Amino acid sequence: MSEIAPAEPWLVREVGTPDEQDGALLQGESIFALANGHVGLRGNLEEPHLGGMPGTFLNSLFEERDLHYPEEGYGFPERTQTVVNGPNGKRISLFVDGERFDLRTGEVRRHERVLDLRAGTLTREVEWVSPGGVVVSLRTERLVSFVRPSVAALRYSVRAEAELRVESDLVVDEELPSPREDDPRTSAVLPDPFEPVAHDDDKLVCRTRRSELSVVAAVAHTGAEGTVSSTPELIRWTATGRGEITFEKFLSYHWPADDQVVADRDAAARDGFDTLAAEQRDYLDDFWAGADVEVDGDPDIQQAVRFGLFHVLQAGAQAGLHPIPAKGLTGNGYDGHTLWDTEAYVLRTLTYTHPGCVGPALKWRHNTLGRARDRARELGLDGAAFPWRTIGGPECSGYWPAGTAALHVNADIADAVLRYHAATGDDEFMREAGHELLAETAKLWTSVAYFDDRGVAHIAGVTGPDEYTALMDDNIYTNLMAQQNLRAAGIEPRLADCLSIPYAEGREVHEQAAGFTRLPEWDFTDHDYPLMLSHHYLNLYRKQVVKQADLVLAMMVRPDAFTLDEKRRNFAYYEARTVRDSSLSAPIQAVLAAELGHLRLAHDYLAEAALLDLRGGGESGGDGLHIAACAGAWIALVMGFGGLRDHGGELSFGPRLPPDLKRLAFHLHWRGASMCVTVTRDSVTYTSDGDVTFRHEGREVEVRAGEELKFAIDQLEDLPAPPSPRPPRRHAIWAEGQGEQ
Amino acid sequence: MSEIAPAEPWLVREVGTPDEQDGALLQGESIFALANGHVGLRGNLEEPHLGGMPGTFLNSLFEERDLHYPEEGYGFPERTQTVVNGPNGKRISLFVDGERFDLRTGEVRRHERVLDLRAGTLTREVEWVSPGGVVVSLRTERLVSFVRPSVAALRYSVRAEAELRVESDLVVDEELPSPREDDPRTSAVLPDPFEPVAHDDDKLVCRTRRSELSVVAAVAHTGAEGTVSSTPELIRWTATGRGEITFEKFLSYHWPADDQVVADRDAAARDGFDTLAAEQRDYLDDFWAGADVEVDGDPDIQQAVRFGLFHVLQAGAQAGLHPIPAKGLTGNGYDGHTLWDTEAYVLRTLTYTHPGCVGPALKWRHNTLGRARDRARELGLDGAAFPWRTIGGPECSGYWPAGTAALHVNADIADAVLRYHAATGDDEFMREAGHELLAETAKLWTSVAYFDDRGVAHIAGVTGPDEYTALMDDNIYTNLMAQQNLRAAGIEPRLADCLSIPYAEGREVHEQAAGFTRLPEWDFTDHDYPLMLSHHYLNLYRKQVVKQADLVLAMMVRPDAFTLDEKRRNFAYYEARTVRDSSLSAPIQAVLAAELGHLRLAHDYLAEAALLDLRGGGESGGDGLHIAACAGAWIALVMGFGGLRDHGGELSFGPRLPPDLKRLAFHLHWRGASMCVTVTRDSVTYTSDGDVTFRHEGREVEVRAGEELKFAIDQLEDLPAPPSPRPPRRHAIWAEGQGEQ
Repeated sequence: MSEIAPAEPWLVREVGTPDEQDGALLQGESIFALANGHVGLRGNLEEPHLGGMPGTFLNSLFEERDLHYPEEGYGFPERTQTVVNGPNGKRISLFVDGERFDLRTGEVRRHERVLDLRAGTLTREVEWVSPGGVVVSLRTERLVSFVRPSVAALRYSVRAEAELRVESDLVVDEELPSPREDDPRTSAVLPDPFEPVAHDDDKLVCRTRRSELSVVAAVAHTGAEGTVSSTPELIRWTATGRGEITFEKFLSYHWPADDQVVADRDAAARDGFDTLAAEQRDYLDDFWAGADVEVDGDPDIQQAVRFGLFHVLQAGAQAGLHPIPAKGLTGNGYDGHTLWDTEAYVLRTLTYTHPGCVGPALKWRHNTLGRARDRARELGLDGAAFPWRTIGGPECSGYWPAGTAALHVNADIADAVLRYHAATGDDEFMREAGHELLAETAKLWTSVAYFDDRGVAHIAGVTGPDEYTALMDDNIYTNLMAQQNLRAAGIEPRLADCLSIPYAEGREVHEQAAGFTRLPEWDFTDHDYPLMLSHHYLNLYRKQVVKQADLVLAMMVRPDAFTLDEKRRNFAYYEARTVRDSSLSAPIQAVLAAELGHLRLAHDYLAEAALLDLRGGGESGGDGLHIAACAGAWIALVMGFGGLRDHGGELSFGPRLPPDLKRLAFHLHWRGASMCVTVTRDSVTYTSDGDVTFRHEGREVEVRAGEELKFAIDQLEDLPAPPSPRPPRRHAIWAEGQGEQ
Repeated sequence: MSEIAPAEPWLVREVGTPDEQDGALLQGESIFALANGHVGLRGNLEEPHLGGMPGTFLNSLFEERDLHYPEEGYGFPERTQTVVNGPNGKRISLFVDGERFDLRTGEVRRHERVLDLRAGTLTREVEWVSPGGVVVSLRTERLVSFVRPSVAALRYSVRAEAELRVESDLVVDEELPSPREDDPRTSAVLPDPFEPVAHDDDKLVCRTRRSELSVVAAVAHTGAEGTVSSTPELIRWTATGRGEITFEKFLSYHWPADDQVVADRDAAARDGFDTLAAEQRDYLDDFWAGADVEVDGDPDIQQAVRFGLFHVLQAGAQAGLHPIPAKGLTGNGYDGHTLWDTEAYVLRTLTYTHPGCVGPALKWRHNTLGRARDRARELGLDGAAFPWRTIGGPECSGYWPAGTAALHVNADIADAVLRYHAATGDDEFMREAGHELLAETAKLWTSVAYFDDRGVAHIAGVTGPDEYTALMDDNIYTNLMAQQNLRAAGIEPRLADCLSIPYAEGREVHEQAAGFTRLPEWDFTDHDYPLMLSHHYLNLYRKQVVKQADLVLAMMVRPDAFTLDEKRRNFAYYEARTVRDSSLSAPIQAVLAAELGHLRLAHDYLAEAALLDLRGGGESGGDGLHIAACAGAWIALVMGFGGLRDHGGELSFGPRLPPDLKRLAFHLHWRGASMCVTVTRDSVTYTSDGDVTFRHEGREVEVRAGEELKFAIDQLEDLPAPPSPRPPRRHAIWAEGQGEQ
């Protein structure tokens, strides 16, 4: 039994032996994953452990597999791409007087793992008494270098009064557990995706069998003498000794395979673990200086928002011209696919906290434009139709009503382009990729939208963010985002102006889609969440039940399209119908709750988003962290309590604190400057290392470099939460682990 | 090369060797299939022939197979049922001086097959010169007995100046060709579905491996001496001789396996082929006396409507308490499933032409009520939700937007119940099954429909007959049929009265579904039919393009719901948007075209329906005949030019002939009487063997038993066809085989 220890500001500590039975083993593997966006090492224990899911994820290294449908349809993707477990260099077996070090045997006196968010390292300390009675002390350290994209390193130290033998492996196609079959959200696990190509005693070359992607993994051990054996699938370095063995292990991965891998590995081995760790800390010091969020009054949130930012950074930092998957490189969930939340959540947060990796991430989309154009043609549309889920660019969604039909992904990409450009002024990016992305996505809308005979334009039969209400007409989020897309591209301005924004007269609320408010109400006495596991889509799709923020998301990203009164009425109406069966929901509801003065509710939603993986219990995040929810913690704090808005390229703030927070300070990047916004219960202070013009509570102001701009805050009365069928847990209860309210 | 010879009134003749390359082999196997609703022998050549699809179909003998989805969903069927090829007793191999009789070798001097629609037999005559130069004359005859449900019989006669050897088989799990993978409409072909259970020299017992359904097939040969060998999968009777071999072969099938099979076979063998053939003719004489349709002026239609009626009879006659599949027992298309068109088309025709098999067919539905109730619960609904496609009762549809969402199948079943009861007065059926079917289907509508706050009731997010416009609100066919269903069951009359019947004000037409007429128009310059093979559903579902009659069907089955002017405007509007990518479309368009005075157009649609399989060319019907289109030929003639309507339990006629027909006479059963309606260009004459009250042109009249009731007809002017994106071929051109207009 293990648990995540009480919150520490910069550390995530697990105490006890992670148990596969309660999901803590898988969950811990995700929480303690290390990655740099290019290479990811899942937080597997060094020794092979039944029930865990080994993961060495190399961004965009995938295998293909066929998709079969009971009833085929034109344009249904015929194959998909699935992330594979790359050559595993984390695996280290230990034998003590010939007995295997296995936590399921003997006695574990102490087992602790610590993820250091400033150091960027994972440390593990174990004190174990073998079945034979030998006391063993083990300490391992790990990092995946933010500075050297191809490199990971381990330090391993074991002490025991016994004969010790360590087998340190680099292994291809290790055995994987079978996937669950009872949940539509689980992913494929491909056995033996690689065929060996070449090997020697310090590197393995292999290739995925069908997608034919080559990878080379190189390994070096220093600090102890060992012997090496190798087969096409395994390099094993074996060291023996009495009393103590300590060594460092260096890994480098290149794909497609090239010779540079040796130089990278050798440089790392030569410089040593301590040097790599020092570089790592320097890199992270820089990151935190420009991105940290300080939260006084809620240690859990303080820890969680940093944990979230750290994992968002790990997902994106060195992704370069590759996608940022929904699970980052922490697990094989969603088959390793990238979905719309990369642009709508992850890049939103990275734009302000680590903008350097946002341009490449959007250029990756641009690099797949050819496929997106082809897909648009296949769908009978113009411009580009980006995939709902993919690794390399092709549409990999096997259920089109909640995949291909969610055309809003195209407007989300355009929105991310606009945001990135506004926040950085990166004109070169716009020339190389941004303008074309805007134009091609806008063209899509010109072909999918149409005018009725009253001159109103519509987008019919698409699916918005809410996957419980599919194939409706005039989804408000889609229409508002398409409108912005068209305007930004300067294409068919009349179409943009005429797009229907459905509004229910009598009820005086906007409609998530045309006719939504006239659909039958859901019977919320049913509490069997997620509803999709016990209710047919035929039942869900035409009821007033909302899986996740949709119209509420629209009110966050298009605040200009709603009056404050409308927002208030809309929020109350949809709050009563939203069940948050998606982790993408809570952060957005937090933002709007904060804006509308439901401050404790906002705090609770913030907690739901921020603590989901870290303290979610069960198997939440077992197949990889919810990276968008990690980004969502930042969104909830900065856009919620900081009131940051960025519509139309303008930066604005409207800070307000919930009753239980004393102070919130956040750093962000804006057009080359590093700003800090400090919110207390009675004031907000803006500082920056460069001049920045922005709006404070609607008024244009400027903070000058090195100066301080301070405003008093009127204490807002906390408005009670509107009725919800599934109120969030109180954040205090999360923290105390007392379960549901 | 083979072709169907010019039309003969009672015969369907194929001349030439059917070629697998042009689809004629498969098509001929369907056209010449013999069946009685219980046992079906596909029209395979006796000798094994590469490229054909062997078929011995035993109603409801199916195997199960798993359905896999790229993305699973709650309530998606986990397995399906697939018709299997049962033990084949048609296979007879011939050797001439040791050379195999194979039409692909040697020289075929003559090859002719004749289906005799009055005799109920298939005769084949071949004159073949072997590669060795021997002239061989072969004649085979076949029947599947309408009188003895389990029995089929063959007579085989070969003459040649040579040593002859005949191997006559009963074979289980013969080799089958692979299915095509490029068309979503193709079916699974299960290899080796059976495991042997027992065998001796005159019967084989086997069992499907997974569904565990047992079958016993018994065989006997008479008329020649032979030797028999048997294995678990094959009984082979071998006869040799010089100059001539003639024998008769008798087959009997029982499933589940029982001992009665031997008695059935022995009785058939004792009575002999000629006796079986005489019984067959008597049975068919009775059938035709009460069901024949005479068409003067169009020999192709004359032949085709009898061909269609014959196959409808073959599909239903002895089906008993089993489903009538969409392909009857003529092929494995749609996996052998029964869909809504059984009730909406096939039972409609059978109700008036052979009512004795309609009650059992509906009792079969009643027998599956438990499963339908369970399915309704699974969908969150009350009452019964019958499957979109099934053999044994469970939902087997793997694409729910055009399957489970088509809830109208439930109202179609209710409609068939009402029609059958009105036409027969079978009150016992109503007590045993009918009333419960009406009540349970009506309950479904009470749970799926809901009231808006203006007091209008809606059924949202369902799919009507038109599969190119899925998951819309208030599909007019569904709502009108649900309304009738509710009223007939006497359940929630207010709901029935309040159901929305969508109407487009300005355009002054009814809407197929709410908002349909405001959807974008389809670009009909594309002629690549069927559209579903080259257009994504995302593109199709929200355009004004209609796969098949939907609103037009509603105007046929609910004539009371529309004024004549509305029908006229609606017909023109939807005619311009309907592409007839379903064979279910043309017969209904024929009916409405006739009613509205587009008489030549009606004739053309009649031809499209009637000639589809018989003269469709290509591979139309290769995997089984379109039994609903066979029924549709009758519908087009009798409901179109005869003007038969039966809404509300009243029989009515409004006869009119198209310019090219001189006379139409049709027989039908009504409440125990056998009526005949004879329409000429200037009069209609009603006769009956019992008193029948009905409406003629809206006026209530009565024909007394043995008397003649005659009315003059006003010659109607043929109105020009409204514009259509895909006008039907002219019937004259079908007949002349000159291809598209």
